[in-house]
Amino acid sequence: MAKEKKLVEAITSMEEDFAQWYTDVVKKAELIDYSSIRGCMILRPNGYAIWENIQKELDRIFKGTGVENVYMPMFIPESLLQKEKDHIEGFAPEVAWVTQGGMETLQERMCVRPTSETLFCDLYSNIVQSYRDLPKIYNQWCSVVRWEKTTRPFLRTTEFLWQEGHTAHATMEEAEERTVQMLNIYADFCENTLAIPMIKGRKTEKEKFAGAEATYTLEALMHDGKALQSATSHNFGNGFAKAFDIQYTDKDNKLQYVYQTSWGITTRIIGAIIMVHGDNSGLVLPPKIAPVQVMVIPIAQHKEGVLEKANELKETLASNFRVKVDDSDKSPGWKFSEQEMRGIPVRVEIGPKDIEANQCVVVRRDTREKIVVSLDELSERLEEILATMQKDMLERARKHRDENTHVARDFDEFTDIIETKQGFVKAMWCGETACEEEIKEKTGASTRCMPFEQETLGSVCVHCKKPAKAMVYFGKAY
Amino acid sequence: MAKEKKLVEAITSMEEDFAQWYTDVVKKAELIDYSSIRGCMILRPNGYAIWENIQKELDRIFKGTGVENVYMPMFIPESLLQKEKDHIEGFAPEVAWVTQGGMETLQERMCVRPTSETLFCDLYSNIVQSYRDLPKIYNQWCSVVRWEKTTRPFLRTTEFLWQEGHTAHATMEEAEERTVQMLNIYADFCENTLAIPMIKGRKTEKEKFAGAEATYTLEALMHDGKALQSATSHNFGNGFAKAFDIQYTDKDNKLQYVYQTSWGITTRIIGAIIMVHGDNSGLVLPPKIAPVQVMVIPIAQHKEGVLEKANELKETLASNFRVKVDDSDKSPGWKFSEQEMRGIPVRVEIGPKDIEANQCVVVRRDTREKIVVSLDELSERLEEILATMQKDMLERARKHRDENTHVARDFDEFTDIIETKQGFVKAMWCGETACEEEIKEKTGASTRCMPFEQETLGSVCVHCKKPAKAMVYFGKAY
Repeated sequence: MAKEKKLVEAITSMEEDFAQWYTDVVKKAELIDYSSIRGCMILRPNGYAIWENIQKELDRIFKGTGVENVYMPMFIPESLLQKEKDHIEGFAPEVAWVTQGGMETLQERMCVRPTSETLFCDLYSNIVQSYRDLPKIYNQWCSVVRWEKTTRPFLRTTEFLWQEGHTAHATMEEAEERTVQMLNIYADFCENTLAIPMIKGRKTEKEKFAGAEATYTLEALMHDGKALQSATSHNFGNGFAKAFDIQYTDKDNKLQYVYQTSWGITTRIIGAIIMVHGDNSGLVLPPKIAPVQVMVIPIAQHKEGVLEKANELKETLASNFRVKVDDSDKSPGWKFSEQEMRGIPVRVEIGPKDIEANQCVVVRRDTREKIVVSLDELSERLEEILATMQKDMLERARKHRDENTHVARDFDEFTDIIETKQGFVKAMWCGETACEEEIKEKTGASTRCMPFEQETLGSVCVHCKKPAKAMVYFGKAY
Repeated sequence: MAKEKKLVEAITSMEEDFAQWYTDVVKKAELIDYSSIRGCMILRPNGYAIWENIQKELDRIFKGTGVENVYMPMFIPESLLQKEKDHIEGFAPEVAWVTQGGMETLQERMCVRPTSETLFCDLYSNIVQSYRDLPKIYNQWCSVVRWEKTTRPFLRTTEFLWQEGHTAHATMEEAEERTVQMLNIYADFCENTLAIPMIKGRKTEKEKFAGAEATYTLEALMHDGKALQSATSHNFGNGFAKAFDIQYTDKDNKLQYVYQTSWGITTRIIGAIIMVHGDNSGLVLPPKIAPVQVMVIPIAQHKEGVLEKANELKETLASNFRVKVDDSDKSPGWKFSEQEMRGIPVRVEIGPKDIEANQCVVVRRDTREKIVVSLDELSERLEEILATMQKDMLERARKHRDENTHVARDFDEFTDIIETKQGFVKAMWCGETACEEEIKEKTGASTRCMPFEQETLGSVCVHCKKPAKAMVYFGKAY
């Protein structure tokens, strides 16, 4: 049976079925493919290239703040994972266990890292002796495994890629400073590079990381009104240090425990890019992160000089942009659809008449705006257009987020918003885990964070009416 | 009990005990640390930064030849691993098995990838349909696991980092071309960037990769006269394609199997850098790969203006070199030792008298040559010095390799060389696996490769005296 490549098919519209739209886009933009391994996805070149750009930019920023990269083993012996009580309780139910190596059954099983706090603690307990050895600001780029029951590409997969930073400091103040610094780095990166506005805040006791004293988080709002936790930064205090005996001699020759942090961002953020910016023609990538920023599409490319001109434009633009020419034997209309599906920020259409008039047509992916540009000023104009597009995408996302953020002053209002409008709900909360759990049970909305920018919307909890402790963002979450 | 940082201790000399020298260097240069996981090592910042530089440079070269990066799952279901008969036979004894996920026992166990041919084949069978989909030239940077009984840092570890390229082509010729192209890329990289000269050749049937039609290899000679396989490139023909049913429709609308290759280089190459260039003061890193190329060491830094000048030099040099200042409170002598142990190519000594004379002292790590340089021309002179050092290191390694490559015309000579001189032995061979195995049994030397540059050293096999088929490099190997 001959296999034949199928035409690009229409994707489900997001209004009709957002979840199906999402699945269609990740597949048809060739970001991922499903694998024969339960809950694991394959990152294809279009998808991995986005991650590479995220990695390159964040790594540069990290290193500017003194971060050093390392690589730790992917396995954790069970006894090591168990050293910190809260940590093992949080992760034990969702790890994959290696029990056999080669032909032998292991005496102690090892899990595939779900996160590497325990390994970094083990290392720090060996290499930190004096205050001169501090701080340690280590990071690794790797994959981790969490045994998920239901999975969705990028959002929740058994294996995913991330970076995990792990630091050790002489004082609690320094640890706190690093925790907040990293959260701010993620937030700035998401806003400036990915055009996704973030709410910065602190997780409740219930939602914080297993073993942390405090977890800070970035929360973003997707197109369908659901929230996505986008990056987290944890302050561990000296809890892990006590469990792993990480002590240093201070300047007065006294033994002290170190204070630690960890922070990470994952391939999940690619899911956010898709769900914040995408439309019914496919992906829309912010210019700063797009693997290909400009696709030159020749019109009537069989005519003399057209392909040559297209390639000439590419060569000229290559020093300033990530640019390609689509010189395949497909029709221009087909090429437009493919460029749109892949979310390439602009296409440059160039045909015989354009060449004659020394111009081309630039089409923005986000607005579809067609802009006739003289070939003499193409590079400058593209620079402007891409910068405007980047700015517009952030503004559009911010507007959507703000329009879908509602204040609830009582629980009827709260329920009504969650049921009819979706989005973020800002409301006062008593600070009790039991109340938080009841809200979630009744509405499906969880506490996303206690934002750093607190507002006083009342004096009592939106649910139980006890005195309010904090203003909280609630929402249904991915 | 107060822990205290110990002084840098002397390392074992390489003449006394090469293996211990190696272990001392990797530990004291802080390239690695041992972990509590059997056979796994921790890559510390000094070690990981070398790998990052290797990765950055190779990735750039790969992409220039059309390579696209992807990420495949780390797990392989047992049934998938078994699809190609030779492949599973080769790898089954040395894989780690995941048998439990969360609280459940898996119905089918999965191994942690020892290599990903099977996963790429599975993907290609899904996404390759027409000749238009070819070639596929995919690569991934990741870690793999092989259950090793005895391990040594970088050289043989249960988990190691590598890149694995996997390609699919329309024709055998194109696959062969890619196989050789990648071997040449590795060879050029090793010579030009790592200053390690390579012998390029083909592996014998016995030594080739499980499932390959042909394996090409790079072989390098270490300081102790042992050989190290440094990179390999495999041509699979259409064997995997048949096992995994990877077919495409050609231009005549006929179904054809694809032809495949794979190729890889691992963190093992860092072991080669250490064992080719290192000396009794520690690591010696080729300037092109060194994470820090220039260490500025202030002399009498408490004196007015010294630290300022050192930092000023650093700022000036930073645009052309990877440069740091050691402004710690250690003595200059101590700092020199640390810079030497870490293999930083040059140090720049700057003290009050130097400042007065508008000069500094540049010391080459490899030769210890001290060069007085005017501060006005420091950048230009460093450029020259580092270029010369890079060239000298390659020449020195080549000279050592050539001086330790011997011709054996009969088996007595062969045995004598292996026993007394070590190094590579060039000899004629009959092409029979049984004979190859006997040679190894008797001498401990294995066939390293049949070099592309063949010489006729005689007409009969050095061992069995049957008619010779090829000239072979033999050697004891890591």
